[in-house]
Amino acid sequence: MTRAAYYLGERTFAVRESEPVPPGPGEVRIDVAYTGICGTDLHILHGAMDHRVRTPGVIGHEMSGRIAELGQDVAGLSVGDPVTVMPLEWCGRCPACRTGNSHICHRLNFVGIDSTGSMQRSWTVSTRIVVPLPAGLPLRHAALIEPTAVAVHDVRRSRLTAGEHAVVIGAGPVGLLIGKVAQAAGASVTVVELDPRRRSVAERIGLSAVDPAAVDLPALVQDTTDGAGAEVVFEVSGSAAGVRTATDLLAVRGRLVVVAIHPAPREVDLHRVFWRELEMIGVRVYQREDYVEAARLVHQGLVPADALISRVVPLDDVAEAFAALESGGDVKVLLDCGGEA
Amino acid sequence: MTRAAYYLGERTFAVRESEPVPPGPGEVRIDVAYTGICGTDLHILHGAMDHRVRTPGVIGHEMSGRIAELGQDVAGLSVGDPVTVMPLEWCGRCPACRTGNSHICHRLNFVGIDSTGSMQRSWTVSTRIVVPLPAGLPLRHAALIEPTAVAVHDVRRSRLTAGEHAVVIGAGPVGLLIGKVAQAAGASVTVVELDPRRRSVAERIGLSAVDPAAVDLPALVQDTTDGAGAEVVFEVSGSAAGVRTATDLLAVRGRLVVVAIHPAPREVDLHRVFWRELEMIGVRVYQREDYVEAARLVHQGLVPADALISRVVPLDDVAEAFAALESGGDVKVLLDCGGEA
Ligand SMILES: [Zn+2]
Ligand SMILES: [Zn+2]
Ligand SMILES: [Zn+2]
Ligand SMILES: [Zn+2]
Repeated sequence: MTRAAYYLGERTFAVRESEPVPPGPGEVRIDVAYTGICGTDLHILHGAMDHRVRTPGVIGHEMSGRIAELGQDVAGLSVGDPVTVMPLEWCGRCPACRTGNSHICHRLNFVGIDSTGSMQRSWTVSTRIVVPLPAGLPLRHAALIEPTAVAVHDVRRSRLTAGEHAVVIGAGPVGLLIGKVAQAAGASVTVVELDPRRRSVAERIGLSAVDPAAVDLPALVQDTTDGAGAEVVFEVSGSAAGVRTATDLLAVRGRLVVVAIHPAPREVDLHRVFWRELEMIGVRVYQREDYVEAARLVHQGLVPADALISRVVPLDDVAEAFAALESGGDVKVLLDCGGEA
Repeated sequence: MTRAAYYLGERTFAVRESEPVPPGPGEVRIDVAYTGICGTDLHILHGAMDHRVRTPGVIGHEMSGRIAELGQDVAGLSVGDPVTVMPLEWCGRCPACRTGNSHICHRLNFVGIDSTGSMQRSWTVSTRIVVPLPAGLPLRHAALIEPTAVAVHDVRRSRLTAGEHAVVIGAGPVGLLIGKVAQAAGASVTVVELDPRRRSVAERIGLSAVDPAAVDLPALVQDTTDGAGAEVVFEVSGSAAGVRTATDLLAVRGRLVVVAIHPAPREVDLHRVFWRELEMIGVRVYQREDYVEAARLVHQGLVPADALISRVVPLDDVAEAFAALESGGDVKVLLDCGGEA
């Protein structure tokens, strides 16, 4: 027997015994070591994704573990191998898939949201979505690869290069990861964040953080960039004000990367887009190469995993883990799913 | 003596005798053959640019002519050479100029708006902004090079390639030129336009034009593109509805080029930008290479100059020329400035 955290709907989890699912052809069973809780999981808890999530069901998509059992016709993986999962399943036939953009497949299945996820001890998945880990990378740290891959994808899409200046609006986990990935790319970074707790986390991991209510942000960015403005702004706040600020801060030909999910249309200063030949770039999840780069950055410590993991909670205490994250003092909370032992 | 059309403010022109300006060092005097009237000139007439235009003053920036007189230290140009002008003067020192984007210089002088233009028989300008014309290109046609360069710049920024599908929202002169330049790049093109007169011009020059009030536009674009959507949409209407339509029509990783000048911020469906990884690209004027390509396209007839020039009016009748353009039945109206004779 194994254990799994079932989301029941109505903000409720139940942790129960369950039967491990034997891996079929082309599948593996993974002993899950850690599963991170992400903003999307909180949205699920808040009922915002009831149209996609089945109940009762197991969610979770930021994970690490080891291969526990191989199905038929599995090559290139062995029992005991450390792995993570890139939680995307695509159709292979739609216009997105046909043009090499399977990560934004018209019929994308986001594993852990649209289908069973990793908040359980034993997880059976297709080998298509398994990503082997570099030797020597601690499994605790490896649980950060999925959100780091988001940041890597966003920075790659921004075409940020060494010597450029990037502004990150919003210092939640994704904003902090973008800041560190941008630094690793050789950019200087300013993080903009209203919450003093989040600013202090940013400073602790070596990012310069400012309070937009306390400084004249456009003047500050002008000063920092010799009058040019920022080459790239990452909008990670999801707010109308964040979008407005972003266009104000950008240099000629600057790129605004829309990272946050904006539930409503936002007013955009298209006159400024014209006047400075700005670009806006949409970003969604990641591609395989982003996973590879994310694993490298976490492994080399360029993404400071220990500083970002603020709490590790046993799977049985999943409700408390979500409550801690909701209360706002945490950065990244991991569930210990028991597979490391 | 020569003649010039002076804009006096308050929607009024006066055509007067004037002294030709002798060219100084590094300058040439041009006998102006034709000057096109553009949407910006109409904005000037409507008082929308009073903060930039001096009165009385001579406007006009879409022109062709011949070198009439050389100033000191002018090399590579001879009296009689056919030329046009790229009406941009930049500072060379600001962050835009320092990064190779002098066409969007922080202190850009748009010649013909911010300084004296070509609605006159004799025009003296710096050789820096003079562009020699290919031999054999009629001067009448050459007056279309400036607006064609706008279209070339917009299509280049869109990264449109052969085999892709482009939608152009708005079939004024710039929209029509974008449609033809996009076709010349090997794309298939759909023009969207409410005005039946403009749609019939589009059809006459070989562009497929649809009435968005009469068809289900998203369904039509889906059908045309095998379910994918348009790779590029050019928003040339300047309307809030145009922006909304644009994001609806785009394929995965599609590019929305904001060509029209939107005086007010516009609501943009950022959720769609995220979901399909869309891009929005700001465009402003042109660069030297766009002028060279525009001259080639006009010369080779890929831009159908005769079909687009709906009226040629003597300089003395400048007021009637503006009135004709305002009434909406014309595409491109040229002033015959007398320099061709
Ligand atoms: Zn996530
Ligand atoms: Zn697909
Ligand atoms: Zn113009
Ligand atoms: Zn400049």
